[in-house]
Amino acid sequence: MDVAIVGASGYTGGELFRLLQGHSSAEVVAATSRKEEGRPVATVHPHLKGYTDLTFTNPAVEDIDADVAFLAVPHTAAMNYAGRLLEQGMKVVDLSADYRLPRGVYETVYGVTHTDYFEAPYGLPELHREEVKGKQFVSNPGCFPTGATLAAAPLASGARYVIYDSKTGVSGSGVNPSPTTHYPNVADGVMPYKLTGHRHLAEMEQELGRLGSKARCFFTPHLVPVNRGILTTAHIILDEPMTQEEVEARYRDFYKDEFFVRLQKPSLGAVRGSNFCDIWFEARDERVVVVSAIDNLVKGAAGQAIQNMNIICGFAENDGLMTPPCMP
Amino acid sequence: MDVAIVGASGYTGGELFRLLQGHSSAEVVAATSRKEEGRPVATVHPHLKGYTDLTFTNPAVEDIDADVAFLAVPHTAAMNYAGRLLEQGMKVVDLSADYRLPRGVYETVYGVTHTDYFEAPYGLPELHREEVKGKQFVSNPGCFPTGATLAAAPLASGARYVIYDSKTGVSGSGVNPSPTTHYPNVADGVMPYKLTGHRHLAEMEQELGRLGSKARCFFTPHLVPVNRGILTTAHIILDEPMTQEEVEARYRDFYKDEFFVRLQKPSLGAVRGSNFCDIWFEARDERVVVVSAIDNLVKGAAGQAIQNMNIICGFAENDGLMTPPCMP
Amino acid sequence: MDVAIVGASGYTGGELFRLLQGHSSAEVVAATSRKEEGRPVATVHPHLKGYTDLTFTNPAVEDIDADVAFLAVPHTAAMNYAGRLLEQGMKVVDLSADYRLPRGVYETVYGVTHTDYFEAPYGLPELHREEVKGKQFVSNPGCFPTGATLAAAPLASGARYVIYDSKTGVSGSGVNPSPTTHYPNVADGVMPYKLTGHRHLAEMEQELGRLGSKARCFFTPHLVPVNRGILTTAHIILDEPMTQEEVEARYRDFYKDEFFVRLQKPSLGAVRGSNFCDIWFEARDERVVVVSAIDNLVKGAAGQAIQNMNIICGFAENDGLMTPPCMP
Amino acid sequence: MDVAIVGASGYTGGELFRLLQGHSSAEVVAATSRKEEGRPVATVHPHLKGYTDLTFTNPAVEDIDADVAFLAVPHTAAMNYAGRLLEQGMKVVDLSADYRLPRGVYETVYGVTHTDYFEAPYGLPELHREEVKGKQFVSNPGCFPTGATLAAAPLASGARYVIYDSKTGVSGSGVNPSPTTHYPNVADGVMPYKLTGHRHLAEMEQELGRLGSKARCFFTPHLVPVNRGILTTAHIILDEPMTQEEVEARYRDFYKDEFFVRLQKPSLGAVRGSNFCDIWFEARDERVVVVSAIDNLVKGAAGQAIQNMNIICGFAENDGLMTPPCMP
Repeated sequence: MDVAIVGASGYTGGELFRLLQGHSSAEVVAATSRKEEGRPVATVHPHLKGYTDLTFTNPAVEDIDADVAFLAVPHTAAMNYAGRLLEQGMKVVDLSADYRLPRGVYETVYGVTHTDYFEAPYGLPELHREEVKGKQFVSNPGCFPTGATLAAAPLASGARYVIYDSKTGVSGSGVNPSPTTHYPNVADGVMPYKLTGHRHLAEMEQELGRLGSKARCFFTPHLVPVNRGILTTAHIILDEPMTQEEVEARYRDFYKDEFFVRLQKPSLGAVRGSNFCDIWFEARDERVVVVSAIDNLVKGAAGQAIQNMNIICGFAENDGLMTPPCMP
Repeated sequence: MDVAIVGASGYTGGELFRLLQGHSSAEVVAATSRKEEGRPVATVHPHLKGYTDLTFTNPAVEDIDADVAFLAVPHTAAMNYAGRLLEQGMKVVDLSADYRLPRGVYETVYGVTHTDYFEAPYGLPELHREEVKGKQFVSNPGCFPTGATLAAAPLASGARYVIYDSKTGVSGSGVNPSPTTHYPNVADGVMPYKLTGHRHLAEMEQELGRLGSKARCFFTPHLVPVNRGILTTAHIILDEPMTQEEVEARYRDFYKDEFFVRLQKPSLGAVRGSNFCDIWFEARDERVVVVSAIDNLVKGAAGQAIQNMNIICGFAENDGLMTPPCMP
Repeated sequence: MDVAIVGASGYTGGELFRLLQGHSSAEVVAATSRKEEGRPVATVHPHLKGYTDLTFTNPAVEDIDADVAFLAVPHTAAMNYAGRLLEQGMKVVDLSADYRLPRGVYETVYGVTHTDYFEAPYGLPELHREEVKGKQFVSNPGCFPTGATLAAAPLASGARYVIYDSKTGVSGSGVNPSPTTHYPNVADGVMPYKLTGHRHLAEMEQELGRLGSKARCFFTPHLVPVNRGILTTAHIILDEPMTQEEVEARYRDFYKDEFFVRLQKPSLGAVRGSNFCDIWFEARDERVVVVSAIDNLVKGAAGQAIQNMNIICGFAENDGLMTPPCMP
Repeated sequence: MDVAIVGASGYTGGELFRLLQGHSSAEVVAATSRKEEGRPVATVHPHLKGYTDLTFTNPAVEDIDADVAFLAVPHTAAMNYAGRLLEQGMKVVDLSADYRLPRGVYETVYGVTHTDYFEAPYGLPELHREEVKGKQFVSNPGCFPTGATLAAAPLASGARYVIYDSKTGVSGSGVNPSPTTHYPNVADGVMPYKLTGHRHLAEMEQELGRLGSKARCFFTPHLVPVNRGILTTAHIILDEPMTQEEVEARYRDFYKDEFFVRLQKPSLGAVRGSNFCDIWFEARDERVVVVSAIDNLVKGAAGQAIQNMNIICGFAENDGLMTPPCMP
C-alpha cells in the first residue's frame, strides 16, 4: 500500500518514516516538503540513511498519488489538502488541528477562518474506535489532549475539577530553532507557558464532555529539558471520594482491551519511541492524582496516526507499532 | 562572628560555605561530618578550593564552639543538637524538619518520636519575620513549602482549593547516590513521586492555615532533569473570580517590601545560586495559576538559613546573599 | 530458536530483550539474574511490559537450556559459564571481557587469574567476519574498542600515532548507582577518567596490531551527560600526508559492503537504539581527525552480540537489527 | 569608576554585569545594544532584576562616556570602537578577536580586512601579565585558547605534538537560536565540528610559539549538552618521557603564584560561574594527558576581561572575581 507523507521534513514526518519501516503493508512512496525540495530524505533525517532513497518533492495537490496520505503540515495548511485528496480517492489522516474541533470552536480558538470545513472522527482510538472504523478521513488528536484525556477518561463522569499539569519535551516545538528551544533557555530549567489559555484545552474539554463529564477543566503546560515525551499529572477532584482499589478497578476495566494503554508507574523512558500510554494513579479522599506518559511524537502524533491508518485500512491496529520502547 | 556548620559535607553544607564567603561578619570556623572526618573541606567540595583550609571534624556536641550553628543534618539527628547547643549559649538555625511542626503532627508525619521537643519560630521571613526577630533558635522551612507558600500566600484567604504541582531538581535528593538519582533514571525524563502523601504537605497546610485559609491543600512533587531549583505551579480555585489586575495588585502589595521576592515570569536560571523567589501568575475566571521559582539549595535551604541568621543576629537581612544569580 | 540471557537484569540484558523482539527466529526463553530472581522481567524493565511474561530465574549452569546463550555478566563471572555451556552444546556469545585478549594480557590488564581460558574469535564482524563464521563461541568486543577501531581501521597501516578521545553516555556504567552516575555529578559536566590507563586500550592496541599498524595507540575516555552513545574522536598522525579525497576513497572502499557502517557526519541521535556505526573524517596535512558514533548498548554491546549470533547461526546478519534509530 | 559595556545584551554582557556587582570600585553606567535599545537591562537579563535600573542605549561611539569600556561585540564590530574610544581617553578591554593576532594572520583566518589595526597585549595574565600592566588597551583571549593554553603551557617547550580536544557548553554559541543550539540537536548528544580548522587554532599556535614550543598544534572542538564550561583534553607527545612527579613539579612551579589556576581534577561544576582554571594531568611514557576546565563565559570571556581591567587599572587582580563557583 502506497503512502504519501505531506510535510515530511519535520519530526513527525521523520517518525512516520521510522515507524512505517516496520509496517507489514505500507510503503512510503512520496515525501513532500517545500523547504527541503530536492534533498534526499536521509540528509534531513540522517538516522534514516540506509532505509530510504526518496528525495523530498513539492508536488501540486493533484499530483500526490498514493493510497493513504498523512498530513503532517501546520494547521491552516492541512485544510488545503484534506478535501482535495479525499476527492482524489485517497484515505487521509490529518495530524494538524484543522478537523479536531467544530468549526466555530476551531475558528475562535485558532483565530482563523476555516476554508474547507467538514466533520471528521476524532482519532483517539481508545475512546472513538467505532467512529473511526470504515472512514476515509481521520483527524489525529493533539499531543497534550491524547495523554491528558487517556489519564482522566475513566474518572470523567464523577469529576468536579480536572486540572491537567503537563510536562512536555522539546521536540513538541518542532524542528525550527527559536528562543523557546535555544539550549541554554531549556537545559537545567522548567518553563511554564500559556498558564491558562493553551489551545489544546478546547480538545480536552470536548473529550471530557463526550464522556459525560460536567467537570471544570484546566490545563497548564510546561517545557522540560527532555527530547521526547509528555508526562501529564491530572489532579482530579471528585464529587465523591473513591478508594485506591475502586479507582484501580475502574481503570483496569476501562482499558482491559487496550494494547497501547499499560497500567504501571509512568516514566518517559518506558514509552520512548513507542505508541504506549502508561498510566498510574493515587487516590486520597476526594482527590485522585492520575499520571500518564506518552511519547509526544508517537502516541502524541505519528504513532497514533498510523494506528488510525490501520483502523481505517483494516490492518491490525498495532501493525508497524510493535517495536518496543527504547530505554534508557 | 564564628559559625559552625554541623553536617557540612552535603550540598546544603557546601552552600552555607559558598554563601558565607560573601558575608560581612560571619566566618566558618568548624565544619562537622561523621563520614568525612579528617578530610579537607575543599576535597569534598572542590569548588571551594582556595576559599577554606578547614578540615572536617567530628566533635562531641559539647565541643562545638561558635556563636552560631547551622544544623544541616537529617531530621531526627537535629534534635540531638538543637537543645544542647542552645544551652551552651549558641544561636542555632535548624535546616531539618525537627522543629517545623507541632510535636504531634511531626511524630505522625515522620513516624518517629521527638526526644527533645520545644516550640520554634518557622523561619519563612516574608511571613514570619517578626516572630523570628530576637530569637535564639529558628526552624528553617522545607524547600517545597518555601516556594509553594510564597506562591499562594497572597491568595490564601479566598482560596477553595490549592493544588501545588512542583518540579524539583535532583540536588534536593542529596549527595548520596540511589536509583532515584542514577543519571539514566533521571535524564530525559520526569518522575512524579508521592502523588498524594509527601511529608512537606503538612508544612504547606500549616502555613495556609496561619494565613487564615480554609482551602483544601494538595501537593504532588516531580523530579526533573535539573541540578538546582524548584518550580512550583500552584493551581488555585478561588471562592470568587478575580481579574488579572486584581491579582497583580494583591501580589505587588503583599510583597512590596520583600527584597527576595521578585514579580516576574519565573525561570530556574534567573534564580540559580541566589536567595530569590520569582513569582508570576495568570487569572482566568475562578482560577489563578501561580508559578514560583526558587533555588532549592539557597532560598529552599542554605540561603534562607543565612537570612534567618541575619535576622536573629541583627545583620542586614541580605548580608551574604547579594551575589546575583548565575544565568544561563 | 531458544535464547537464554545470562545476567538479564542490566541495561545490556534489557537491550537483548528489546532487539530480539524483532528477530525472525530467536525467542528469549530464559532470563537469569541472581539479584532479581523471581521478579517479572517487565517489572525491572518496564518498557518491556506487554512483550514478555518471563520471570527472572537463577538456575545452576547445567540447568540453562537453550540453543544460544548470551553472557551479559561481568568479567570473571563469564568464565564460569562459557566453557560449561559450550560443553552442554549451546552456542555462546560472551559480552564480557573474559575472552577478548590473550590469557597473559587479560590477566595483566584485569589483574585477575583466568580459570577457564581458551581462544575465541573477536566478534567485530566488519574486521573478523570470516573468523567468526561457523564457530560455536564468540567474544563480543568492548564498547569503546568497537567505535574506536572502526574509526581508525582504514588508516591503521599508515598511522604513526592513533589517539582515541572518547565521550561516552552514562548507561555504559550500568544500572547500579554510584557517585560517578549520580545525576548532579554528571549533568552539566564532562568527566575525564583513566586519562592514560583504561583497560579497553589493550583491545584497541590488539586490533591495530592485527591490521598491521605500528602506530602508538592512546586512549582517554570522558563521561558526558548523555544516556546512550559513544562518540570517539580519533586523532591520527600519519606517516605521510593524505588528502581528504584519498581518505574518503579509502573509507568508502574499506566499508563498501558493510550495512552497519554509514559514512556521514556522526551524531549520537542518528544511531540511537540501532546497530549502526556512523563515521566521518577530515584530513589536513599529516593529520586526519576521524569521528565515529555508536550506541554503546547496541553496536557496543547487545546489537553486536546479536550480529555475532546471526553469523554463527547462519541468519541474515541484520536480522533483529533493522529497527531504525530513534531520533531525536 | 564608571564602566561601559558595549554590546551588553548577550551572555558575555550579562556576565560582566553579574560579576561587576561584586567589584569594589567599578560601576556599570552604560549598557549598549542595537537590538535591545530602550529595554530595561533586567528584562533581557532577568536574573539581574533588583541589581540594575539601567536601560539599553545605542549611542554613537563619541557619546560613550566612561572610564573603562568592555567591547562585547563580534569581531569586525570591535575595530569600529577600539581606536576611537582610546582616543577619547578611555581604557578598553576588547573581548572580540580583532586584536588577538597579527594583522596578516587575522585577515587570513577571519577572511576579512582589518580597518583599524594596532598592536595590543594578549590578555592571558598568567602568561602575559607584565605586558598588560600599564596599558590602556587589552585584547582578551578566546575561550578555547584560554583553557587550552593554560593546560599545555608548562610542557610547551618539550612538546612534539599538542592535540587539543575540547568539549564546550552551548552558551559559547551566544544567545541567538540556530540549528546548532536547538535543544533536540544538542541534548543527549556530542557534536564535533570544525574537525581541523577552527579559527581559535591560530591563537593556540601563537601562544605555543611564544612559549618557545616547536610543537605541531591541532585542535578539535565538540559541542556537549552543557550550559557553561569548556573541558579541554590536551594530548601531548613529548620529545622525552617524563614521570608523573616531574610533570607535577613542573605545573606546581609554573603556577605557584596564580590565584586563578588550581591544580586538582577538573570538573565543570567546580569552576562554574568563576574565573578559575582547574588543571590535572597524567603522564605515561612520552605522553602526558592534561585536562583543564574553565567557565567559558568567565575565565573564557567576562571574568578574564575583568581580570585584565583590574591589571590595567591597578586594582587587586581578583577584585570582583572572588565569588566562589556554584556547584552542583
